[in-house]
Amino acid sequence: MKTVEKWGLFEVAVMGPKEGNPFVEKSFRGIFRGKNETLEAEGFYDGEGLYKVRFMPSFEGDYQYETMGNFPEANTSGRFAVTPPARGNHGPVRVANTYHFAYEDGTPYYSVGTTCYVWSHQPEAVRQKTLEELSKGYFNKMRFCVFPKHYIHNFKDPETFPYEGTPVDNSNLTEETFSYETDFSGNNWDFTRFCPEHFRRIEKAILELQNLGIEADLIVMHPYDRWGFSKMSKEEDDLYWHYVIARFSAYRNIWWSLANEYDLMKAKTLEDWERYASLLCAHDPYRHLRSIHNCIAFYDHTRPWITHCSLQRQDLYRHVEYTGDYRIKYGKPVVWDEIAYEGNLDMGWGNISPQELTRRFWEASLRGGYAGHGETYLDPENDILWWSHGGTLHGESPVRIKFLHSILAETPAHGLRPAPGIFDETVAVPDSPTFEGGYELHYYGFGRPSFRDFQKPEGEIWQAEVIDTWEMTVSDCGTQSGRFRISLPGKEYMAVRLKRMN
Amino acid sequence: MKTVEKWGLFEVAVMGPKEGNPFVEKSFRGIFRGKNETLEAEGFYDGEGLYKVRFMPSFEGDYQYETMGNFPEANTSGRFAVTPPARGNHGPVRVANTYHFAYEDGTPYYSVGTTCYVWSHQPEAVRQKTLEELSKGYFNKMRFCVFPKHYIHNFKDPETFPYEGTPVDNSNLTEETFSYETDFSGNNWDFTRFCPEHFRRIEKAILELQNLGIEADLIVMHPYDRWGFSKMSKEEDDLYWHYVIARFSAYRNIWWSLANEYDLMKAKTLEDWERYASLLCAHDPYRHLRSIHNCIAFYDHTRPWITHCSLQRQDLYRHVEYTGDYRIKYGKPVVWDEIAYEGNLDMGWGNISPQELTRRFWEASLRGGYAGHGETYLDPENDILWWSHGGTLHGESPVRIKFLHSILAETPAHGLRPAPGIFDETVAVPDSPTFEGGYELHYYGFGRPSFRDFQKPEGEIWQAEVIDTWEMTVSDCGTQSGRFRISLPGKEYMAVRLKRMN
Repeated sequence: MKTVEKWGLFEVAVMGPKEGNPFVEKSFRGIFRGKNETLEAEGFYDGEGLYKVRFMPSFEGDYQYETMGNFPEANTSGRFAVTPPARGNHGPVRVANTYHFAYEDGTPYYSVGTTCYVWSHQPEAVRQKTLEELSKGYFNKMRFCVFPKHYIHNFKDPETFPYEGTPVDNSNLTEETFSYETDFSGNNWDFTRFCPEHFRRIEKAILELQNLGIEADLIVMHPYDRWGFSKMSKEEDDLYWHYVIARFSAYRNIWWSLANEYDLMKAKTLEDWERYASLLCAHDPYRHLRSIHNCIAFYDHTRPWITHCSLQRQDLYRHVEYTGDYRIKYGKPVVWDEIAYEGNLDMGWGNISPQELTRRFWEASLRGGYAGHGETYLDPENDILWWSHGGTLHGESPVRIKFLHSILAETPAHGLRPAPGIFDETVAVPDSPTFEGGYELHYYGFGRPSFRDFQKPEGEIWQAEVIDTWEMTVSDCGTQSGRFRISLPGKEYMAVRLKRMN
Repeated sequence: MKTVEKWGLFEVAVMGPKEGNPFVEKSFRGIFRGKNETLEAEGFYDGEGLYKVRFMPSFEGDYQYETMGNFPEANTSGRFAVTPPARGNHGPVRVANTYHFAYEDGTPYYSVGTTCYVWSHQPEAVRQKTLEELSKGYFNKMRFCVFPKHYIHNFKDPETFPYEGTPVDNSNLTEETFSYETDFSGNNWDFTRFCPEHFRRIEKAILELQNLGIEADLIVMHPYDRWGFSKMSKEEDDLYWHYVIARFSAYRNIWWSLANEYDLMKAKTLEDWERYASLLCAHDPYRHLRSIHNCIAFYDHTRPWITHCSLQRQDLYRHVEYTGDYRIKYGKPVVWDEIAYEGNLDMGWGNISPQELTRRFWEASLRGGYAGHGETYLDPENDILWWSHGGTLHGESPVRIKFLHSILAETPAHGLRPAPGIFDETVAVPDSPTFEGGYELHYYGFGRPSFRDFQKPEGEIWQAEVIDTWEMTVSDCGTQSGRFRISLPGKEYMAVRLKRMN
């Protein structure tokens, strides 16, 4: 009997008709039954007469399946056994306690993300370099797109396209002639015929990320387009969404980002976004995380299908500092997926210092939210920028972000929340009404205090540590009680951690 | 015949009675008549039987004066001649064109201020060191207090007190026992008898600043008090205000700051502040600049007696970036007198980096406002901090502030205003509807662009310069036209200046 681990991917494939257009004319689906769950999953046509349906079991034990469709070969059935999850497999990430995430096995998930919008579409050498960087454990979430990207530094064609057809000529594209407005003429696509190879590349990427313990925050639609993928008809969009959901839902590390910068997609209406969301809710049987990311205007993150806020900063100067406000406003995890990138581009979204990006991570995280990284150092020779292509990291923030994650992972309850503090500090405590130990992180951002005074109630003993968030050191300051003073080096980006010992 | 320069100080002194309490029982005033003005000024008792009345002439030529009061010797008269102003004497600073200042002779005044709250009350060696630093030309405005200051780093008694009497014992004061709330017991003051020596020290300071080309932004009341000066009765307050106005109004470089952090002075009501303002408007015949400075809540800066907004930042992260908003809201010059200080104190108001303070100056200034400096480096040995005592400057921002002033002084019209730009830059242009040349400052703050692209209409020729606001260099990039690119070093705190050449 076939086996698959819990939260692994079980696939049933059948050979069927190739005639006509199987993508629109043929249906294929499966029903998967175990002791604790019965789920139905849509299948998809993978080209060359091959039909597949995928399933992610959430329980161990014996399962049965049946497949069916509108062609004779679709009807199959069988059994398989679900084994315990392998080491490192904690299941899909869920919203665990209003503002925070956990893997389904209960392991807290502290999100430290990055963005390489179209890394999976790059040549294999670049992809391998990306994976090599990712293997260093800086990040546990990656935002990337199904569609290729048309933008400055992104004029090369991708390795594959999502549809059968031919793209517009890209040979005359330059930064000087680049425009956000394109008329899509010169393209010749059949939006009813997918190119399975393109989607297999995405699946490979999802799996590679999974193997590195990284969530795949998949951006299903986006506005940076010269091919017309952002301006398809309602029927074409829905066909695409069905196909994406059918192919990717069974990967445990998938997150759905309906769009990057939905508000720049002028051809789409609020009704469209809500319809895509309905499709996701109806056809992803695993209820993977769902978000929608803004350029300027936030989507209404109170919408029930939105599991967490995926935010881009709306102001140059104050953004992650609003994390507490958005927690209250939306009652969901607050993930700052774009807060400007470490780099030296001409534009402000891509030229902040590693110090400033690291500061933004700390502010977001200590206020009970999460942040996302990106890197945009100019590369005149190859024009490979991490933010879009992946490749080699050049910056100084990733290792600091990994350090921050190690601190977050030491939170004694599940997640942090902002706590009242003095006006000039950001104070985080465990985000749990039942946590009774004392645990506080005091962060001073761009302030440069030479010391800080603390006052604790009589009889309490606290361990004090000084955290240099830039140098990535934790220095023990011994146990303290009553009124005490912690010396600091008069440098930016320092924190003090206090742990109650009695 | 006696002479005095235009905008100089002409004083008439008479000997009169010492008996009783001349401060409250005796009146003395003068009327000063020239061809172009007739002004009445209140006099004051300077102790030891000496009565004085002071006058600042605003026109050249012959003047007559009469003095009078409720004692026989008060009645005098005489003549004097007003000569042209000496070099460096440009008259008092006025609001010139809604948002900007000029000296009365029309010379633009670009405010770059500093704060040494109680520098005039310090021992002479410290005072001389302060003056030595100020002589380096970093600043052209100084905020300081008439009353001494009670606060951390400020437990020593001042050299003199404003009233006859004895102060509370200060020998047990420590940072640990310091509180904002004091009961003022242990003090023994006669609030009807001023100590003239205290006020002569202030006058000396005003004059020393005047000689250095620095405006004296005199803080008449403030909350940091252990002596009871912040909680006097209405009658005592009014006596004080009359005395202050009579003594200081005739100094051309005086500005009136009704209070530092008026909103912390819990004993005072809105009615009180408006009454002090009325006294100022009624008895300062020269209409010197008037402001009132907040801790948290701004005063209503639309009040007609307020000549300009003296602001303390209300948020840690976004403050001077609101300059354009406050220009619109209040229709007056916007002066950010407190935006945190360069230093390494424990508190956030006193521990930002010189880079960040300089950035705040540039942001405020290029948005058509002005900023103020302060320095708070710990001095364990002597506890002399510039922000309060003056003394020696240790920081790196003053010389950069002087450099900014040199750039502001090159504005071809009078003052700058914020202009529309790309989202990630601060753009300043001359704040004049009639200025027709092209002049633009593009500032990138904490952004680190490697280049910026510009586009100018066909036929226009522009000179481009790169300004490194930290290194204090201006690099010529030659003439440019049409679409052009300016290379930048990918560092923070850069600006580009464009000047139209045709």
